[in-house]
Amino acid sequence: MTYYQEHQSEFLESLKAFLRIPSISALTEHKPDIRRAAEFAKAQLLGAGMTSAELIEGEGNPLVYGEWLGAPGKPTVLFYGHYDVQPPDPLDEWKSAPFEPEIRGEDIFARGACDDKGQVMIQIKAVEGLMRGTGKLPVNVKFLLEGEEETGGEHIEAYVKSKPPRLKADAAIVCDTEMFAPNLPTICIGLRGLVYYEIAVEGANHDLHSGVYGGAAPNPVMAIAEILCALKDRNGHIQIPGFYDRVVPPAPKERDAWARLPFDEKEYTEKEMGARELVGEPNVPLFERVWARPTVEVHGIKGGFVGEGAKTVIPARALAKVSTRLVGDQRVDEAIEQFTAAVKAACPKGVTVEVRMLSAGAPSLTNPDNAFIQAAADAMKEVFDKETVYIRSGGSIPIVGVFDRYLGIPSVLMGFGLPDDNLHAPNEKFHLPNFYRGIEAVGKYLELLGR
Amino acid sequence: MTYYQEHQSEFLESLKAFLRIPSISALTEHKPDIRRAAEFAKAQLLGAGMTSAELIEGEGNPLVYGEWLGAPGKPTVLFYGHYDVQPPDPLDEWKSAPFEPEIRGEDIFARGACDDKGQVMIQIKAVEGLMRGTGKLPVNVKFLLEGEEETGGEHIEAYVKSKPPRLKADAAIVCDTEMFAPNLPTICIGLRGLVYYEIAVEGANHDLHSGVYGGAAPNPVMAIAEILCALKDRNGHIQIPGFYDRVVPPAPKERDAWARLPFDEKEYTEKEMGARELVGEPNVPLFERVWARPTVEVHGIKGGFVGEGAKTVIPARALAKVSTRLVGDQRVDEAIEQFTAAVKAACPKGVTVEVRMLSAGAPSLTNPDNAFIQAAADAMKEVFDKETVYIRSGGSIPIVGVFDRYLGIPSVLMGFGLPDDNLHAPNEKFHLPNFYRGIEAVGKYLELLGR
Repeated sequence: MTYYQEHQSEFLESLKAFLRIPSISALTEHKPDIRRAAEFAKAQLLGAGMTSAELIEGEGNPLVYGEWLGAPGKPTVLFYGHYDVQPPDPLDEWKSAPFEPEIRGEDIFARGACDDKGQVMIQIKAVEGLMRGTGKLPVNVKFLLEGEEETGGEHIEAYVKSKPPRLKADAAIVCDTEMFAPNLPTICIGLRGLVYYEIAVEGANHDLHSGVYGGAAPNPVMAIAEILCALKDRNGHIQIPGFYDRVVPPAPKERDAWARLPFDEKEYTEKEMGARELVGEPNVPLFERVWARPTVEVHGIKGGFVGEGAKTVIPARALAKVSTRLVGDQRVDEAIEQFTAAVKAACPKGVTVEVRMLSAGAPSLTNPDNAFIQAAADAMKEVFDKETVYIRSGGSIPIVGVFDRYLGIPSVLMGFGLPDDNLHAPNEKFHLPNFYRGIEAVGKYLELLGR
Repeated sequence: MTYYQEHQSEFLESLKAFLRIPSISALTEHKPDIRRAAEFAKAQLLGAGMTSAELIEGEGNPLVYGEWLGAPGKPTVLFYGHYDVQPPDPLDEWKSAPFEPEIRGEDIFARGACDDKGQVMIQIKAVEGLMRGTGKLPVNVKFLLEGEEETGGEHIEAYVKSKPPRLKADAAIVCDTEMFAPNLPTICIGLRGLVYYEIAVEGANHDLHSGVYGGAAPNPVMAIAEILCALKDRNGHIQIPGFYDRVVPPAPKERDAWARLPFDEKEYTEKEMGARELVGEPNVPLFERVWARPTVEVHGIKGGFVGEGAKTVIPARALAKVSTRLVGDQRVDEAIEQFTAAVKAACPKGVTVEVRMLSAGAPSLTNPDNAFIQAAADAMKEVFDKETVYIRSGGSIPIVGVFDRYLGIPSVLMGFGLPDDNLHAPNEKFHLPNFYRGIEAVGKYLELLGR
């Protein structure tokens, strides 16, 4: 491990150089930066000892692929990460420039520091350390980095779907999640699925005067309210027929482990969320609500007059963005059918509703007894000197479902972010001790896998 | 009546000149036009034989006042109208320029043609005809014209509230409504009241990721949906406790009269409203629903992400514009209390709600046996050669409540617009036969009142 400890400042310089490239996938004017970041990652892969590395072109931003296959008979792991970042706005809330990495205390501040350049760099430097130290790797290694994770681009999915032989592997290693608490090694074994919809309601073909027609005219905003209330009751319990049928409750062992996680509900509610109190299904513990229960959530709504003052209009149309999170054995196709049928059934008289599905990803759950998960837990335990905890995440990482479906491999979610790393927000940061220990942990993981 | 018939082309020229002034109260750049229109109206009043006329200055656009008090012992009527108009946009939908009046068939097209310059000109020319024909008027006459009706300006209300002695009158004559059907003389005896609110809901103090927090985080958009659904059921029946307590059902005689009105529900629904079907309280006839029943209506809503694509955010706040229409003996203050209490009671856990009242106007209902109403009905019957019908309007004319409250006088709503006059829309028009017959009818009305 000496190599890792000796080269920390060099690793840091590589990370800084990566962070200085404003590879914002959402903004067209940063297309050249996207390419620079891809080229930078490719050069890093070659520098780390990959025998080959290249950009894979296609619809959208290039994928970066690299491989080292010098360990015949040993497992093959596929590292996944992304080199694109979120836009930095609101700019005026940043304490230092988002693309000029600045170290304050033990943290490095920059857009992408944690999500996901810092974690991609952990993967690369872990490999580099082993190569430099021993001239070879204990397992076969492949890298697949994408450049449109933040925009939901479909290049990587299209590529993986084509099942290219070069992606054959025994497990994927995804470093794009977080640790449950500082210094608490964490592996995420479950992700919720996500189906995202737009619900469009139309009433009359033009706005109507609420004095003249109020009492007889259909109101699309009210219709959306009625539809939303028909989908979920005031306790957060979903009313879509059949939606819970395939929901698998966590095993008692998992539930017990969650109950033992270090957790301050008041701090979580008030400081982290900035909320007054938690809501949701009564008698369902918090972690189960956010990790192991499906949701129906409205993300946005618009319709009618929302300017200053008063306008007595009955709007002609209204629109809402609504998603469902899926868990356990829920199936995407079935969930879409159930949701669409429930919306249509709840649509009141006088209006028409259209349900447009915008994206869909399946839930995933990996058995913690899987050998690749076990080795990861052992490696992290050794480096962090603490028992690794297994958690799930309420969010969705679509690539995990894609790897599962088309490559038939499990994903090991080894994350080194922290809950307060300000992902997608101003002053994104990465905790440097996690950066260095992450490199060691991933290196250790490959060693353990090679035994 | 000869004078009226002989001078139609002169009346038309006066109307055209009035319509050429773009007195748009909503747009600051038209302030000079507002003043020009006020001066024009003042000159018209003097030309019609008022012994004095003046602009009353105050906060907002000037009021135009004029009087002729040469009939001691006779009643005094107060004519009300407004010289300001709505903005003309969308401009490209006009077939002729909005401020270049054009006659096509029997209609004159221009912004303000019906609302309200045409009807103000009816009042002025009716008076002018009597003065020119007989050298005097059968009753005492006052005019009070405002210049901010379309923007809800408060100049006139502030002025009337001060109860200036010069506004003393026995009845107000408001020409700003419409006839139920072409050639069907109509008097509106009831108006719904209106209280307009903004409902603002806050959850967490920042937007939250729906994957991470969905299932535990309060959702302000959902909260507004829940509040709306608690206020009114899917049948349009209001659920606010006590809200119907003071609702007075129409008398059987009035109900019967409404049932006899010439009406084509299919045409009303599909052509006029552009809707598929009518909604609202079952077993309540249409005219009762829109004229004599209170409503809760949402006019607009906003919250969260409504851009293109998908963003998985739980919004921090949401806002809705909501109004209640009031009828019968409902009292504004009580209705506000009931509404506010119901919103607060319906507010779900985890969010806070603020109810801001933006404007309030009481309902009004005049007894059709009132002598001023009777005379108006008789005058219209004589001119249009058809029995006058009594209707109500679902809309609100705040000045009617103001006259009632501060001057203690009833308002006679003699309207000469038609349902297809495109008020507030492109190609506003006024039916010229109604313009000429309106002048005659108002003249006849003053004659009848003088007997």
